[in-house]
Amino acid sequence: MIKVFGHKSPDTDSTGSPIIWAWYLTEVKGTPAKAVLLGEPNTEAAFVLKHWDLEKPEIISDVTADDSCVIVDTNNPAELPPSINEAKVVGIIDHHLLVGGIKTKSPIEITVRPLACTATIMHDLMGEDLARAPRGIKGAMLSCILSDTLEFRSPTTTAHDRAVAEKLAADLGVDIPAFAAELFAAKSDVSAFSDAELLRMDSKEYEIEGKQFRISVLETTAPQVLLDRKASLMASMPGVAQEDGADQVVLFIVDILREEATLLVPNDLVKTLAEKSFGATVTGDTVVLPGVMSRKKQIIPVLKL
Amino acid sequence: MIKVFGHKSPDTDSTGSPIIWAWYLTEVKGTPAKAVLLGEPNTEAAFVLKHWDLEKPEIISDVTADDSCVIVDTNNPAELPPSINEAKVVGIIDHHLLVGGIKTKSPIEITVRPLACTATIMHDLMGEDLARAPRGIKGAMLSCILSDTLEFRSPTTTAHDRAVAEKLAADLGVDIPAFAAELFAAKSDVSAFSDAELLRMDSKEYEIEGKQFRISVLETTAPQVLLDRKASLMASMPGVAQEDGADQVVLFIVDILREEATLLVPNDLVKTLAEKSFGATVTGDTVVLPGVMSRKKQIIPVLKL
Repeated sequence: MIKVFGHKSPDTDSTGSPIIWAWYLTEVKGTPAKAVLLGEPNTEAAFVLKHWDLEKPEIISDVTADDSCVIVDTNNPAELPPSINEAKVVGIIDHHLLVGGIKTKSPIEITVRPLACTATIMHDLMGEDLARAPRGIKGAMLSCILSDTLEFRSPTTTAHDRAVAEKLAADLGVDIPAFAAELFAAKSDVSAFSDAELLRMDSKEYEIEGKQFRISVLETTAPQVLLDRKASLMASMPGVAQEDGADQVVLFIVDILREEATLLVPNDLVKTLAEKSFGATVTGDTVVLPGVMSRKKQIIPVLKL
Repeated sequence: MIKVFGHKSPDTDSTGSPIIWAWYLTEVKGTPAKAVLLGEPNTEAAFVLKHWDLEKPEIISDVTADDSCVIVDTNNPAELPPSINEAKVVGIIDHHLLVGGIKTKSPIEITVRPLACTATIMHDLMGEDLARAPRGIKGAMLSCILSDTLEFRSPTTTAHDRAVAEKLAADLGVDIPAFAAELFAAKSDVSAFSDAELLRMDSKEYEIEGKQFRISVLETTAPQVLLDRKASLMASMPGVAQEDGADQVVLFIVDILREEATLLVPNDLVKTLAEKSFGATVTGDTVVLPGVMSRKKQIIPVLKL
């Protein structure tokens, strides 16, 4: 039984894409596979599972040398189970830059494309077999694309992602604006989470000038809810950084509707980061970055100290 | 202008595939590209260029940060230009295990498949656009597949590689056995090469138990020509190893027609390697390994000390 999983902080794409691909491997390719998660799905992903009546995948903490795995939505060992390079990785489907840490024991199937969403790549790989997919699989695919593109607002969106989503929505009879609003409302409901959980919810580790950063993003249609928790979020950063072996946590609150990010500025290190990376003028403990919505396209490539 | 290249010891696949993909990028995708080589093509690749009336690509020694590159037939930095991780890698098409050394600055197109030949993957990626390819491009594609599969004898051969080759041969009016015999005769003509050149001609670096090995393979229909040079080939191994920063050169002479490999055994290290890896009984300075034809499938996975 092949285990299909995404990264450690399961958002919609990292929850939905394993379900889509496990269905395809099992039902179309005849290769038994199951989706698993490396952590609790976020509120949006939990909404997607419920909305499309999909079973929540089992959460696993590691893999062994006996496990065959397909990795989706990441190729970064830091975001994967600790023993990933001992397991038998049989496939990778991803849309992120290659970080160069995964090794395989033999040639495998790897498909990386500069698209907004893993599910769009799966759509292309499945071709006409997608027609056989049940409603829940197509719904998961549509949800992944709307989530990763922030309803086509993110600059990562390609014409192809949009065309695939619109085709799926028409097929399913889904009204995109209404459904996306439900998705984003679910994502914006952060009341149940501690500050530390929010800082780790959508976070990627990156090294800048020898320093380890946790670059965290929270996408929301209700930024004020998060900004009201600004003081305690900043107070939680040092503890989270220390526990995770990082030097600094950096939090961007992305306002999906206004298409801007607010960066919390707890100290001089982040102030310098904001000024050098974005040419921003920082006067208080937050700074607004107009137009910034994508960590991949607009944050990571410009970060410097 | 995108530079498309394979590995440092250009065989037929690493010479032909860049030509095929540069044609596709330029003529179909409208993205100007040119094939380049990282060294002199081997005798078989030189025959293929001449046979299909293809221009020999320029040989380059390095790339710069200004270069956009597509890497084909490898993903191993040791087999690529020294500055590869400074260049802008925009695509990778390969059929080898992932060694994990290439990093990209943004998400790019990566396609790795467990097929025998890079050109087969290109065939699939090109789809119906292949119909527009001139005879030389289709001929290069057929040549790559026949070369990498040793005319379907290598255990790396998949039914799909074979089907693609047979379709191309029918389209081109090529008799596969006759053409493959010409290919292998060209590959077997090693008279012009020094011992050091032969040891480096088709060679991959691998680490076993902390020791660096150069695992070299020479595929031939005339093994006796090489075995007659056994003493001087073995005498050249320490010098080549030292120059290349390796501990040992290991040479397998693959007899394409008898479907077996003869391993030269210059010392106790290689004797131990042969015994532990292949369960072979070594009495002299060579050992025959029946059925062994593929470094990827039958040599690398079993090597141990």
